[in-house]
Amino acid sequence: MTQLYLMNNDSLFLKNTVLFGGDYNPDQWDRETIQKDMALFREAGINILTFPVFAWTKLEPVEGRYCFAWLDEIIDLIEDNDFHFFLATPAAAPPAWMSLQYPEVHLVDVQGRRKVHGSRTLFCLNSEKYRERAALMAEQLAGRYGKRKGLAGWHVANEYGHYCYCGTCRTKFAGWLKNRYGSIDALNRRLNTAFWNRTYTSFDEIMVPSELNDDNVCDPAVMLAYQRFMTDSTLECFQNEARILKKATPELPVFTNFSSNLKPLDLSRMAEAMDVIGWDNYPDPGSPPSFTAMTHDIMRGLKDGRSFYVMEQSPNQQNWQPYNKLKRPGEVRELAYQGLGRGADSSMYFQMRQSVSGVEKFHGALISHSGSSDTRIFREMKQLGGELKNLGKYIVGAETCSETGIIMDWESWWALENSSGPSESLDYLAEVHKYYAPLYRRNIPVDFLKPGSDLSKYKIILLPLLYMLAPETAERLERFVENGGTLIATYLTGYADEDDRCVYEAYPGLLRKVFGLWVEETDALLPGEKNTIHTAKREYSCDFLCDRIRLEGAEPLGFYGEDFYAGEPCFTVNHYGRGKAYYLATRPEDPFLDDLSGQILSENKIRPPFSTEGEVEVSERIRNGEQIWFVICHDRDGGSIDLSAAVYEDLLSGKKLQGTIRLAARDVLVLRTCIG
Amino acid sequence: MTQLYLMNNDSLFLKNTVLFGGDYNPDQWDRETIQKDMALFREAGINILTFPVFAWTKLEPVEGRYCFAWLDEIIDLIEDNDFHFFLATPAAAPPAWMSLQYPEVHLVDVQGRRKVHGSRTLFCLNSEKYRERAALMAEQLAGRYGKRKGLAGWHVANEYGHYCYCGTCRTKFAGWLKNRYGSIDALNRRLNTAFWNRTYTSFDEIMVPSELNDDNVCDPAVMLAYQRFMTDSTLECFQNEARILKKATPELPVFTNFSSNLKPLDLSRMAEAMDVIGWDNYPDPGSPPSFTAMTHDIMRGLKDGRSFYVMEQSPNQQNWQPYNKLKRPGEVRELAYQGLGRGADSSMYFQMRQSVSGVEKFHGALISHSGSSDTRIFREMKQLGGELKNLGKYIVGAETCSETGIIMDWESWWALENSSGPSESLDYLAEVHKYYAPLYRRNIPVDFLKPGSDLSKYKIILLPLLYMLAPETAERLERFVENGGTLIATYLTGYADEDDRCVYEAYPGLLRKVFGLWVEETDALLPGEKNTIHTAKREYSCDFLCDRIRLEGAEPLGFYGEDFYAGEPCFTVNHYGRGKAYYLATRPEDPFLDDLSGQILSENKIRPPFSTEGEVEVSERIRNGEQIWFVICHDRDGGSIDLSAAVYEDLLSGKKLQGTIRLAARDVLVLRTCIG
Amino acid sequence: MTQLYLMNNDSLFLKNTVLFGGDYNPDQWDRETIQKDMALFREAGINILTFPVFAWTKLEPVEGRYCFAWLDEIIDLIEDNDFHFFLATPAAAPPAWMSLQYPEVHLVDVQGRRKVHGSRTLFCLNSEKYRERAALMAEQLAGRYGKRKGLAGWHVANEYGHYCYCGTCRTKFAGWLKNRYGSIDALNRRLNTAFWNRTYTSFDEIMVPSELNDDNVCDPAVMLAYQRFMTDSTLECFQNEARILKKATPELPVFTNFSSNLKPLDLSRMAEAMDVIGWDNYPDPGSPPSFTAMTHDIMRGLKDGRSFYVMEQSPNQQNWQPYNKLKRPGEVRELAYQGLGRGADSSMYFQMRQSVSGVEKFHGALISHSGSSDTRIFREMKQLGGELKNLGKYIVGAETCSETGIIMDWESWWALENSSGPSESLDYLAEVHKYYAPLYRRNIPVDFLKPGSDLSKYKIILLPLLYMLAPETAERLERFVENGGTLIATYLTGYADEDDRCVYEAYPGLLRKVFGLWVEETDALLPGEKNTIHTAKREYSCDFLCDRIRLEGAEPLGFYGEDFYAGEPCFTVNHYGRGKAYYLATRPEDPFLDDLSGQILSENKIRPPFSTEGEVEVSERIRNGEQIWFVICHDRDGGSIDLSAAVYEDLLSGKKLQGTIRLAARDVLVLRTCIG
Repeated sequence: MTQLYLMNNDSLFLKNTVLFGGDYNPDQWDRETIQKDMALFREAGINILTFPVFAWTKLEPVEGRYCFAWLDEIIDLIEDNDFHFFLATPAAAPPAWMSLQYPEVHLVDVQGRRKVHGSRTLFCLNSEKYRERAALMAEQLAGRYGKRKGLAGWHVANEYGHYCYCGTCRTKFAGWLKNRYGSIDALNRRLNTAFWNRTYTSFDEIMVPSELNDDNVCDPAVMLAYQRFMTDSTLECFQNEARILKKATPELPVFTNFSSNLKPLDLSRMAEAMDVIGWDNYPDPGSPPSFTAMTHDIMRGLKDGRSFYVMEQSPNQQNWQPYNKLKRPGEVRELAYQGLGRGADSSMYFQMRQSVSGVEKFHGALISHSGSSDTRIFREMKQLGGELKNLGKYIVGAETCSETGIIMDWESWWALENSSGPSESLDYLAEVHKYYAPLYRRNIPVDFLKPGSDLSKYKIILLPLLYMLAPETAERLERFVENGGTLIATYLTGYADEDDRCVYEAYPGLLRKVFGLWVEETDALLPGEKNTIHTAKREYSCDFLCDRIRLEGAEPLGFYGEDFYAGEPCFTVNHYGRGKAYYLATRPEDPFLDDLSGQILSENKIRPPFSTEGEVEVSERIRNGEQIWFVICHDRDGGSIDLSAAVYEDLLSGKKLQGTIRLAARDVLVLRTCIG
Repeated sequence: MTQLYLMNNDSLFLKNTVLFGGDYNPDQWDRETIQKDMALFREAGINILTFPVFAWTKLEPVEGRYCFAWLDEIIDLIEDNDFHFFLATPAAAPPAWMSLQYPEVHLVDVQGRRKVHGSRTLFCLNSEKYRERAALMAEQLAGRYGKRKGLAGWHVANEYGHYCYCGTCRTKFAGWLKNRYGSIDALNRRLNTAFWNRTYTSFDEIMVPSELNDDNVCDPAVMLAYQRFMTDSTLECFQNEARILKKATPELPVFTNFSSNLKPLDLSRMAEAMDVIGWDNYPDPGSPPSFTAMTHDIMRGLKDGRSFYVMEQSPNQQNWQPYNKLKRPGEVRELAYQGLGRGADSSMYFQMRQSVSGVEKFHGALISHSGSSDTRIFREMKQLGGELKNLGKYIVGAETCSETGIIMDWESWWALENSSGPSESLDYLAEVHKYYAPLYRRNIPVDFLKPGSDLSKYKIILLPLLYMLAPETAERLERFVENGGTLIATYLTGYADEDDRCVYEAYPGLLRKVFGLWVEETDALLPGEKNTIHTAKREYSCDFLCDRIRLEGAEPLGFYGEDFYAGEPCFTVNHYGRGKAYYLATRPEDPFLDDLSGQILSENKIRPPFSTEGEVEVSERIRNGEQIWFVICHDRDGGSIDLSAAVYEDLLSGKKLQGTIRLAARDVLVLRTCIG
Repeated sequence: MTQLYLMNNDSLFLKNTVLFGGDYNPDQWDRETIQKDMALFREAGINILTFPVFAWTKLEPVEGRYCFAWLDEIIDLIEDNDFHFFLATPAAAPPAWMSLQYPEVHLVDVQGRRKVHGSRTLFCLNSEKYRERAALMAEQLAGRYGKRKGLAGWHVANEYGHYCYCGTCRTKFAGWLKNRYGSIDALNRRLNTAFWNRTYTSFDEIMVPSELNDDNVCDPAVMLAYQRFMTDSTLECFQNEARILKKATPELPVFTNFSSNLKPLDLSRMAEAMDVIGWDNYPDPGSPPSFTAMTHDIMRGLKDGRSFYVMEQSPNQQNWQPYNKLKRPGEVRELAYQGLGRGADSSMYFQMRQSVSGVEKFHGALISHSGSSDTRIFREMKQLGGELKNLGKYIVGAETCSETGIIMDWESWWALENSSGPSESLDYLAEVHKYYAPLYRRNIPVDFLKPGSDLSKYKIILLPLLYMLAPETAERLERFVENGGTLIATYLTGYADEDDRCVYEAYPGLLRKVFGLWVEETDALLPGEKNTIHTAKREYSCDFLCDRIRLEGAEPLGFYGEDFYAGEPCFTVNHYGRGKAYYLATRPEDPFLDDLSGQILSENKIRPPFSTEGEVEVSERIRNGEQIWFVICHDRDGGSIDLSAAVYEDLLSGKKLQGTIRLAARDVLVLRTCIG
């Protein structure tokens, strides 16, 4: 068990319960509706509700005058119905009165415009007034509800991830830069401001990178600094409330829900301030199961393997996709178990009841506009709720055990996508997924690591596009290989230092010796353009980027087949210490990666838990030494799993299983070994 | 005769003349050119001119100092040449001096920027200064020209349809909301402001929905309110001038010309203030004849069947299309008669003479840059002018008689297209056209009705996507069916009340009983994705949206053929009272609608006036009991009409016709029954 | 020799040296790096460096306090290494301290936003403070470095071409208009402001055409005026510095580097202020060699045939393309000789050393991030440097001799692309290239002429889309034809006067008599839509625009094959005086133009210097009567040139050549006749 926080009242709730429920907006409903909802929630097996996410004005209709009576009543009702709740601070959407009295609480957008009251999340992260009022609200909530029996934790604000470009932020950014670089000379040197005469003579001259100076696209290093600063500003916003809530209720978890748009904030830094990771799982339409799996794995990695909460999913169609398809029968359940199998301790949903108006009025809900439980979705949710009741004691807080890791780095992500060149097709997360997917396809568990993570427990480390490379990371990687590890890196690795200054010597910089090569130049291929990789065994296609590399000890394993660099090496291995360092100078097609991962896993004696056919995902969680396997058939044509001789119990059906099990599309098994 | 207004001088002019002429800009020309133009106008058969639409500064070069001498001279000349004219107020484009002295007369755009002098129609609809000066100008014009013999009516401003987002509008919008909702609590409740904490504590906090708060896309209900408010503001602008003109010349029609972009203003409300409907017919390139026919029918419906004016068409190419094609030989005539056949009493054009410079310098004109009458277009216009001379006594003010109606609703249009979800492909007007076209293809006359229209004279009512449904409308529709009517509704009907609040019970809300079903959920199909409808007779394809419906008495007539809801009903009829209520849960391909309309028309004993082959449009107008039929061959391969045994006179050629008549492409007949 | 300026110190340098080198940014590097660079430059054969383009703040860190010590040191070093240099004024990127103290030095963009410090070239061209500081800086530089031995000339600012829309510009624009038109009445008349009531009563009412009044797209004539005004403002900026530099060092050339985006500034006017033309050659990816050739020819034409400098090219990949491909082996050399063959006296590069960070950190350089000379690109540049050493005395200042000319006109370019209609596909420069390319394909030299150029030396003049036509130009063209010349014009010729007012009589206006026809109307074809041209010999396709023309003496040579104007003439010749005037009423496919140019060249007895096969470019330069031919094989499959019986020396290989020479892809020969 890794849940560090203690529970205040019925401590077993969070420890042994798979949370099932989600966002509820009682401030939108009359008492009669809320009463009906309670009955429907009981029927569906709901055990947790998150609220009141967007009710600041209702809680504080005039500056400093608080109205909690309505919330008291709702909490009474919720507790009377034996539900728990995450109490949300309403900080994501400040009141209209605040906008009017203090226009500076609104953000200035990247186009240079001060916003006015309207859509949520339009506040300036650095506004003192905003922070003052948010802190006072947190104090009120903590004082009034901190001891409530149903309170399971604190949900701060909602889906942080916006930037502000106002004067306040400018001043604070200048201070942040001063703090980071010490002097204006150091800043000039480390940000290479001589380029295009950005040279500063004083911190007063610092501007934020926006459309007002084009630095949002024309100064990648300053933009990177701003992304760091915005992460820090967001962290301060969170901690501004969290430290109050924590002080009042040290035994309860305090956290926020991360958006499924992972990029704007460095979540590896945000994670440090969270008691537990919460995130909102909204897969893009057409996105493959492996991508969602990867995102769960990323979330699990944020706190070094700790289990996390899925705070939001849609029980049915969304409203903000171009074409909002219904969730297919069984799809809600399939997605729920995918999360649980990869480290989630909850399956929570936006939303419990569909809003009657507003921009999300067509977003799916447990209870639709019809208000009825006689719907397909309600029945599917109810089935799920029933199943989850029994799973808590097997999986809550359970861990995943992995011998392979991927280093993911928000700062490399930002720097690469801030970059003008080499290719506008560069999509860091898609690249990470490209290298993750072959392991996923083999049901090999993978841990997402940070550049600073301890690598000693791993046999294989993937290093996709680790563009920025700190000396400590390079040293750690070098030691990893020396000690027998297998390291696999790609193009765009080891280019720049922490200020996005490219190395003076050739790429991959500090890893040149480990990989035994340097990169002379890199060709960008047009969309659809291909080259080929010729290995001893066969030929594969490749695309995107083609490094021309110069070997200094590395052994070439693959060669380009086309273009003026045909015959030159594009895939190499360097035996370094007791380990191996592979380098991919171009982006291969998937069969190459499948063959490569097959070979490397086999060399490292890493095997999947079961043999499967079709697109069948298998994941594993371990609690108190007991393994639980989640088997999910994503294949539209069905698939199978071979349990061979051992006997397993399916915790969902209660059946005993053995041998080869056929699985229909969206079938789920949750297996434990039968003792004896 | 439904023309209610009386004529001041030669009252027979408007009563018996098909208006032929259009926009003329004498303020752009020297006297010599204008003199030449008069001769060319006489040659072409012109009888009416509209001016001076954009001459405010020339009429009032300094605030309060008016210069009418030049206009006097032109009007003398026009009357000397026996032309009539619609005198235009120049209110669409305020003077540069006004912009400089009173910057607040300029609108603030949706991006939050105050405009400056330049392109037309950049004024704030709610500017007091603008309204003051426009009213004083109207007073001057009315006083000076109200008694002129050639004056046929007043043309106010030009193509209203812009929005403003300035501080003045904000204040007035707050007042408008207060007036509508009474209290801030009522507003909060009815606009569900609790969603995302838009909750207001005072009307001072109201903002306009713009890019400054994202409410233009993020608050559909507020956006809907703003669309209503902008319609009301525009109406006030119009009436600000119209009441003065009306007072001075109660016997003359006062109106504006509606843009062919119908969406921005609720024309059903605008129409109430017009003495006659005028509109500008600029079909999009590639738009089918049925779409233009529909727009004429919509215009005819705005004043419950009253004839209207086509104020602008292009005599040749336009300049503001991406690719400005020449009007093909005969196309000008084809379009002119299409309008006349569907309720127009005019065929007017922008423009009489082509501007030598400015953004529309390449827009076609009766008189092109060549200044010559030796052009194809001049000859075609002259032929048309000659033909129209004889038609006035048969068609001016004539009516159309229809037993089928379509309910079209600007507020549903706005609300549906403001909506995020279910599908970004939603195009309300294209949907209305989809359901209109099968009747058009059969030459069945259709009346466009408002939700509040009297339905008692109709046998068939189409109800495409009537998303917003007032209780009175629902009751009227219920009574219509009870009394034996046939009602055909589609997906997205009956979802919301007048504030865009979705129904608490299931859709189609108040019509659930009439249709005998409810909608459980709606699937959005991707572009190109199809499902199928299986009826007893055959199979059709369908796309866009697929409701999953639950029958409560309705009889299923068609079933889905694909997806997880295959076999579920998607086309139903409910026998209700003495009538039938059909429900289409998905969007069928055209053959389905052709078959359906064939069957329903036959059940209701509605037949087209003549049998035709090919794309041949037939429309009918009735004046003093005499029927006139317009027969237009849109088919590039020609077509035919079967007049069978009766003998008709073609008013254009003077020929007597009988039996089957072959028609070449763009051929036109205007038929009356030969007596005896 | 046409180089008019004298050299200060070693005057033979510029007279006999092909310049090889380019932009260097010593302000970005430490002393050790610069020392290393000097050695690498010597190794590569560099002879010229341009700097310090972006070092204003380093040179003037506080207003009025100058720091030149660091630059002194670098110049010492450069002179010690026997390099020459173009000293750049740093005016393209004012210091951050200036932005802070004088925000008005920043431009207001077309969206109406005042910029702040960041990306380069964000200054207001009309800012007095900017000009004051730029002039003082120029004074300092001239005073301190004017006598330096290595100084070869002055490079002012960098790639002018931005516009400003601020209040200062507005005031100056009003003054500019007053100066041009004299009175507000004249302005109203000549800009036809009556259209849409732009009518002005005072110059105070003038606004700049921007998104704040939509005149950037809605008033083509005002936009044209603004394009002229921005050109004038830029000229003033240049001359503000140039007059100081010129005064200090009258013997040295003063110039700027023109961007490869030719459109924003009227380079034919800019050229007047330049001592020599410099430009930056960055061919778009996929752009054919003929387009780059044309741009060199345009540059040569700017000063009536004078040789010019290529100031920048990329030695390898760029960073600001969507997909930045490596320069292929030999491509740098191929491009270098293409420029030299068409009039360049230099092959210079951006950049000598790759920046370690900043938006262009991935832009190719002689010295890449690797810092090594052991790269493909360094070796290719070094080979080129070696070759160029010997060429100076043959080609520097050499001329090209041509009997065909194309009239290119920035004002027609602007006016046509400002226009709404007839077709949004209109791309003036692509049209010019369309008519240039057939001559290029035959290796016929072409001079680019201005509307005001002397035509007497030419046999053939092409007149593509000369939309604006001054009476003097018309007269000159008329005389050209009368005197026996062959004139070939196209659609969109002779439409408008210098204020974009269309002719009162029909197009082509003043050339109606010369071409013996008038244009009745013009049809725009959709993308992909075609018509056909039937001539006596064969049929060709055509597209884009189809004029319907009316002959008044011209002889029809080709007829439309399709549409309602099938059978009407679309290609004519008029015998006028002793010459011929051809008119193309539509845009033909290339084979038509190849046939037409073949016939006309033959009639005029103009022949290419050599016969070639494949895509082989041949160009010629003449110095002191000696001809040098540049032969470049652009064909990926190779080609050949037939030197027939004469013997030539290839100045690159030193070989004697005769008869048919096979050329591989990217092969280059530089030939001179062997004497005896």
